[in-house]
Amino acid sequence: MGEIRLEINELIEDLKFDEKGLIPVIVQDYKTGKVLMHAYMNEEALKKTIETGEAWYYSRSRRTLWHKGETSGNYQKVVDIAVDCDKDTLLLLVEQIGVACHTGNFSCFYRSLKGGASFIFHLENLLRERKKTLPENSYSAKLFREGKEKILQKLGEESIETIIAGMNGKKDEFIYEASDLLFHFLVSLIEENVEFREIIEELIRRHK
Amino acid sequence: MGEIRLEINELIEDLKFDEKGLIPVIVQDYKTGKVLMHAYMNEEALKKTIETGEAWYYSRSRRTLWHKGETSGNYQKVVDIAVDCDKDTLLLLVEQIGVACHTGNFSCFYRSLKGGASFIFHLENLLRERKKTLPENSYSAKLFREGKEKILQKLGEESIETIIAGMNGKKDEFIYEASDLLFHFLVSLIEENVEFREIIEELIRRHK
Repeated sequence: MGEIRLEINELIEDLKFDEKGLIPVIVQDYKTGKVLMHAYMNEEALKKTIETGEAWYYSRSRRTLWHKGETSGNYQKVVDIAVDCDKDTLLLLVEQIGVACHTGNFSCFYRSLKGGASFIFHLENLLRERKKTLPENSYSAKLFREGKEKILQKLGEESIETIIAGMNGKKDEFIYEASDLLFHFLVSLIEENVEFREIIEELIRRHK
Repeated sequence: MGEIRLEINELIEDLKFDEKGLIPVIVQDYKTGKVLMHAYMNEEALKKTIETGEAWYYSRSRRTLWHKGETSGNYQKVVDIAVDCDKDTLLLLVEQIGVACHTGNFSCFYRSLKGGASFIFHLENLLRERKKTLPENSYSAKLFREGKEKILQKLGEESIETIIAGMNGKKDEFIYEASDLLFHFLVSLIEENVEFREIIEELIRRHK
């Protein structure tokens, strides 16, 4: 991916604020990769963000600095800051406390043509839907109809197939079986009423 | 998450273009959730995007409509379009052909303080680093030192533990074991020189 790590002074050097002294900021949830909101910072907001480790923005309508979460409690803890190739946009990766949107939705982008999630979460939502509606001719619906024992048995089978493909050293086969395993892993989570997000959160807890 | 699905006419109704007739657009990779770029559309660009299913933008520097990928071949196939609570920003989920950035980087946000990836990809990068540097006192480095057989054996053990926790019906235990399984799944991918992205791509192929 060609990731380049910068020090804070390199990151903010030559940053291009627009004619109003603002820079657009894309805010992304660190856990799920969901895009949460689009906001603006001026230089002071950026400095406060860096100093405090929490997101500060500039409100264009209220013409004032704005510490996100100050009234709602929905603070954003900054995990990473990235800058784009033109140095005229920032990307904030945050740990979102509560929800990002004033409507009560987790993300401000809660309305879309198809559900708005990147693939793994889209697949999770699709599988959850299948469990509810149990359509004919759906492989996952068949699994949900057969129930927990069968689903966990399949999880075991797919693990073993992944292990054997891994021992064989044939990359294509391994990718195929590991994909089967991840798919049945998601089916198992849904059967157990666990969200993929909860697994990510557990892994984040361990890596702190 | 309160996702609301809209028809195209609902999505673009009352959309707030700024005083220059533009709306900011956040572009996100559908497969990995990576934020790729920040651009602008005018009404015509949005119409062309909807008509063709490929991303069109308005270049503020060249003052012209711009079909992303026309010269580079790096087209963006639109998977979903979301709008924010204020209807003044769009989020495009795309399948990125090639790379998004003119620098040759996959994302325009290739420079950051810490690596710029949401957690699961951050963890994957961290584990890949561990395999290279094999630091003392690192559990994953210990696994990589012990090699493929041991890693795949652990994958099997964690699957079994997940299955047993699932049968027990204790949610906390299941989350704990499923997290262990996902962790060792990532370690296995790295041992086999496979990227998590390749697994997602295989699953996308199957769901087309």
